Amino acid sequence: MNSRWVSLPDHAADAPGGLPQGFRAAGVACGLKPSGGPDLGLLVSDTVGTVSAARFTRSGVLAAPVILCQERCRLDSLRAVVANAGNANAATGRRGVDNAARMQGAAAMAVGLDPEVVAVASTGVIGVQLPDQPITKGILAARGELAPDGGDAFGEAIRTTDLFPKTAAVDVTLPSGTVRVTAQAKGAGMISPNFATMLCFVQTDAALAPETADLLLGVCVKRSFDRISVDGQLSTNDTAILMASGASGIRIAPESDDELRFGEALDAVLRQLALLIVRDGEGAKRVGRVVVNGGHQPTVDAAARAVANSPLVKAALYGGDPNWGRIAQAVGGVLVDTAPLDVDIWIEGVQVCGRGAAVPFDLAALEQAVAREEVEYTVGLPGEGAETEVFFSDLSHDYVTINAEYTT
Amino acid sequence: MNSRWVSLPDHAADAPGGLPQGFRAAGVACGLKPSGGPDLGLLVSDTVGTVSAARFTRSGVLAAPVILCQERCRLDSLRAVVANAGNANAATGRRGVDNAARMQGAAAMAVGLDPEVVAVASTGVIGVQLPDQPITKGILAARGELAPDGGDAFGEAIRTTDLFPKTAAVDVTLPSGTVRVTAQAKGAGMISPNFATMLCFVQTDAALAPETADLLLGVCVKRSFDRISVDGQLSTNDTAILMASGASGIRIAPESDDELRFGEALDAVLRQLALLIVRDGEGAKRVGRVVVNGGHQPTVDAAARAVANSPLVKAALYGGDPNWGRIAQAVGGVLVDTAPLDVDIWIEGVQVCGRGAAVPFDLAALEQAVAREEVEYTVGLPGEGAETEVFFSDLSHDYVTINAEYTT
Repeated sequence: MNSRWVSLPDHAADAPGGLPQGFRAAGVACGLKPSGGPDLGLLVSDTVGTVSAARFTRSGVLAAPVILCQERCRLDSLRAVVANAGNANAATGRRGVDNAARMQGAAAMAVGLDPEVVAVASTGVIGVQLPDQPITKGILAARGELAPDGGDAFGEAIRTTDLFPKTAAVDVTLPSGTVRVTAQAKGAGMISPNFATMLCFVQTDAALAPETADLLLGVCVKRSFDRISVDGQLSTNDTAILMASGASGIRIAPESDDELRFGEALDAVLRQLALLIVRDGEGAKRVGRVVVNGGHQPTVDAAARAVANSPLVKAALYGGDPNWGRIAQAVGGVLVDTAPLDVDIWIEGVQVCGRGAAVPFDLAALEQAVAREEVEYTVGLPGEGAETEVFFSDLSHDYVTINAEYTT
Repeated sequence: MNSRWVSLPDHAADAPGGLPQGFRAAGVACGLKPSGGPDLGLLVSDTVGTVSAARFTRSGVLAAPVILCQERCRLDSLRAVVANAGNANAATGRRGVDNAARMQGAAAMAVGLDPEVVAVASTGVIGVQLPDQPITKGILAARGELAPDGGDAFGEAIRTTDLFPKTAAVDVTLPSGTVRVTAQAKGAGMISPNFATMLCFVQTDAALAPETADLLLGVCVKRSFDRISVDGQLSTNDTAILMASGASGIRIAPESDDELRFGEALDAVLRQLALLIVRDGEGAKRVGRVVVNGGHQPTVDAAARAVANSPLVKAALYGGDPNWGRIAQAVGGVLVDTAPLDVDIWIEGVQVCGRGAAVPFDLAALEQAVAREEVEYTVGLPGEGAETEVFFSDLSHDYVTINAEYTT
């Protein structure tokens, strides 16, 4: 992961594989993916007293596993996750919820836990009932393969159109000692900042109070998966779950230096994964970052999302075209009835528009700058004190191919 | 224009060319378009007492000609329009407004009218200053070619990425006699329903009170250009102008049968042009129509626009894929925190989703139905009494090519 936009804090370092103490995971093929690839993942914490926190999509059309988690799980003390790719179990009605409950029940039985501490997650095609038998078979197979180094296999099993795996493993040095944080994410399409369409599972052997886990996950999701867009499309299945086994014996007390440093590391891990999702955006060649500042937070947020979701801006990013007129148009288009709007625009630090009007710049130099893998846009609106950022992928021929020729 | 979605009322018939009485128009090449094609249009009403009405984009970033029209024109008594393609004169600051004013002044002098009754419109690239000399030269050349059958030439001169001209000419039989309505429109990209990114000029030899002209244009724009989307991108330059010369001697009294019938014909003409814009949407192969009904108008509106602007829905339309899960996702994604949402979905009259869950249907038959040029989606939300429609183009490889490889 080489991005100028995200870096680990000094007190965190990439860890050489292996889940945090107390966790085991596995990923197997159960036959949902036509490719025959891994499509069922199982993750377990063996530690009694494991603490957890979760966040879900806010879509009006919730997938069955999301409904199940929200209605029938103890989200602050989850011990296991069962997840599948290849079928979203969304728009499947009561039968879909029953199927998700059966999946939960089978996983609970396989790992010897109460169903209410087993979370369920699905990703894949919408509107198709989940077949029962492959899931049950897959869970049994996964149980046999649960291992402390099974995080990568679990990450493989939740991929759909993802071209590459999205995992992280860091050791975090705290005043009280060293803890490990690992995470597995998936996401490539149907990604929108609210929060992004994705699955992400995070494990740590630090000991957290439920309130701390919830607070840290909430803040870090807002700064990561809430700030990315592939195509502005909110999914039915978004799920992020943090589990803290406490098996390291190191307790993160609220408002301590431990909490601060742990939070910084968690933030960096989630931002890395979020950026990987954008970089792996369906068909993406380049990644953009738009930073908007001004005096009014909702206006700044709306402008940033308008730029990140504009097909014209995204196509220009793909084409390596420093077409700032489309940035101005996207901002103006969402801030209706605000003319005359004093908007300033910079691309890669070069000012191209000042107070709503063209500013002379070196076009050849800027064309070179926007031909790189990452392009940064800055938009200044009137006022001060509010700022936001959104990371986004471009709009390419491959995005059209992937979404026109395949039923995803 | 063969669409099952728009038809002329019985009392209107296609007219064999020629502007309504009292109008002359021309279109010439002045050198703004690299292709050397026609890029400057001039339209004049020779009748004193001509009445007009206008609507403009609500973008926060208004193009100079829009600012000029709003600040320095008598919009209820316009006598002429000068329009150019190849340069939007947008994001050009004070100098841009000065250039638009010079364009207005030159046109006013050429046709012998006060500048304040001459409207200015531009379309093309954003952020480039309008060159003075070609415009002046073009206006003089156009003056020499003004003719009663110049409507098509005028329509040619306002095209940008449009693949085909968008004009209409109908004779409308009213209780009081027959009047003519003609119109020229342009638009292919940066098209969003609020209202669509386009230019449209409408002429009639009926006599209208200013209030009637304003009311009729307002209502018809809401039912046409407000209801289409190519890419959800609101432009900086949208302009629609209706001019009524009254030269037929037939007066449309408020709340008369004349007004009703004239309104029906105007509505059909603008809807035809709006649908032509969607059909000519950049790279478009197929056109979709989404109809949403339910109990709450803002919800119904938001859902329809979400479907029409979803890149996933648009790519599926392009691919001929009856992937209704993406319709459910798009609706749910914009109606956050409303789960469980009882949504019904029909494609080409076949129900595919009932109360949020899959309904069995004949996939092969539906695949055939969505392979045609026009595809209709119907979404039912809870409640009754609110309904809307949006017409939209698909998302194709050519859209990406046009917007990645060309600076438009």
